[in-house]
Amino acid sequence: MTQAEGKGESVAAVENRDGAGEFLLVCEHASNRFPAAFGALGLSAAERRAHIAWDPGALGLARGLARRLDACLVHATVSRLIYDLNRPPHAPGATPAKSEIYDIPGNANLGEDERLRRVTAVYLPFHDRLHAEIARRLALGRPPVLVTIHSFTPVYFGKPRAVEFGIIHDADPALALNVLDEARAGTGLRSELNQPYSAADSVTHTLRLHATPYGLDNVMLEVRNDLIAHPQAEEEMAHRLAPVLRSALSELQRGRHRGRQD
Amino acid sequence: MTQAEGKGESVAAVENRDGAGEFLLVCEHASNRFPAAFGALGLSAAERRAHIAWDPGALGLARGLARRLDACLVHATVSRLIYDLNRPPHAPGATPAKSEIYDIPGNANLGEDERLRRVTAVYLPFHDRLHAEIARRLALGRPPVLVTIHSFTPVYFGKPRAVEFGIIHDADPALALNVLDEARAGTGLRSELNQPYSAADSVTHTLRLHATPYGLDNVMLEVRNDLIAHPQAEEEMAHRLAPVLRSALSELQRGRHRGRQD
Repeated sequence: MTQAEGKGESVAAVENRDGAGEFLLVCEHASNRFPAAFGALGLSAAERRAHIAWDPGALGLARGLARRLDACLVHATVSRLIYDLNRPPHAPGATPAKSEIYDIPGNANLGEDERLRRVTAVYLPFHDRLHAEIARRLALGRPPVLVTIHSFTPVYFGKPRAVEFGIIHDADPALALNVLDEARAGTGLRSELNQPYSAADSVTHTLRLHATPYGLDNVMLEVRNDLIAHPQAEEEMAHRLAPVLRSALSELQRGRHRGRQD
Repeated sequence: MTQAEGKGESVAAVENRDGAGEFLLVCEHASNRFPAAFGALGLSAAERRAHIAWDPGALGLARGLARRLDACLVHATVSRLIYDLNRPPHAPGATPAKSEIYDIPGNANLGEDERLRRVTAVYLPFHDRLHAEIARRLALGRPPVLVTIHSFTPVYFGKPRAVEFGIIHDADPALALNVLDEARAGTGLRSELNQPYSAADSVTHTLRLHATPYGLDNVMLEVRNDLIAHPQAEEEMAHRLAPVLRSALSELQRGRHRGRQD
């Protein structure tokens, strides 16, 4: 069901599926793996390790959060350059021919057949798998809180980025606003709303596809990747951000409880 | 992939998959079939033929429209009482214990395991199948226009309903408003917006799940079932409504074209 075409390789991995926590974590850009069915897209080994191929540190951070929050984690196991799971099938950015300053030869002049092959082999099985986990929790009376975990490069088109922790929302900003408050109050991280990207940059596809239709609380998190550049740093960041998520959600739920009592 | 649990029976059927038309028609309540894996839910044969089990006439109407519009049609092949595909997994109405004046014994005090079984065997494979057809068209540069086709009973809780043709929208009313105008101008049907149901009654789940995340034009249609009570009537209704859909979409596209020129 979640197999890359003809290779028996899964494109989605689910960890801590039966976690009792309310959060469901998603890491669409967890991996810089290029399965043989798709090849290396003409990229060098160094390019395949660069931020264009994946979100370095995001999976380690997501795993650290999943452990602390007893959360289920759904993450990709193929590079975003084969198919960017946070983009819809008609978006040029789903299979980008250029990413920041890098050309992606294997994505240049992509034909419809190859685009459709990647949608069928990567996009659909990943999102079907995530959908199944969400539907399962809904059926069991435990609507999840959807949090997508990303990292961004400290230098983009040659310009340094000052923001350290970006909190991005789509249609429903409630959880994002609480995360921002908690992050500013408790972490010392330079935290900004809708930075370095926002929904206007089409980066909230996963939230739109999975959270909004079910009215699930949701937020997208972006951590600057130099702050999670090795396993110990990932763990330390998870240690800082887990209480932020916990408090932000509690505050949201308390607010609703008060709202019902008014 | 679209098999009812352990039975090798499909829960979704796709007709005219390669149709060249822009419309993608969906009929979630097309069938009053009760596969052996789920049984008859304690209902008599007459109850299983009643409007609570399906939308009588909707499939015939949808097929007539699909033929005239060269549209792909995705329809259910199991009764809505086993799982109502137009409801999310946490909605009590997904597996209703009572529908209008009828008790559904097989849905009374449904345990979590049985609810989850139906979500896994019916809800997920149907919507995954529909998602695949939408994603395929998006990848091919042909974003579909999503139209869900329903019928409603002329007498509900003992009260007759005057409306003949209901046009229901969710977040984006653009296509629905055009369909309303065209229906009133051209069909003689008593046509009403958001009647006999509206999004506030939670009847727009399919639109929310599949059209809104991709920004697809969409509308839900409800035809009073006494007007499509036999094959010839279904054909005649399709003959009346196909030009309504065609004109409503053309008008929408002309409006956008004018908008771009301003």
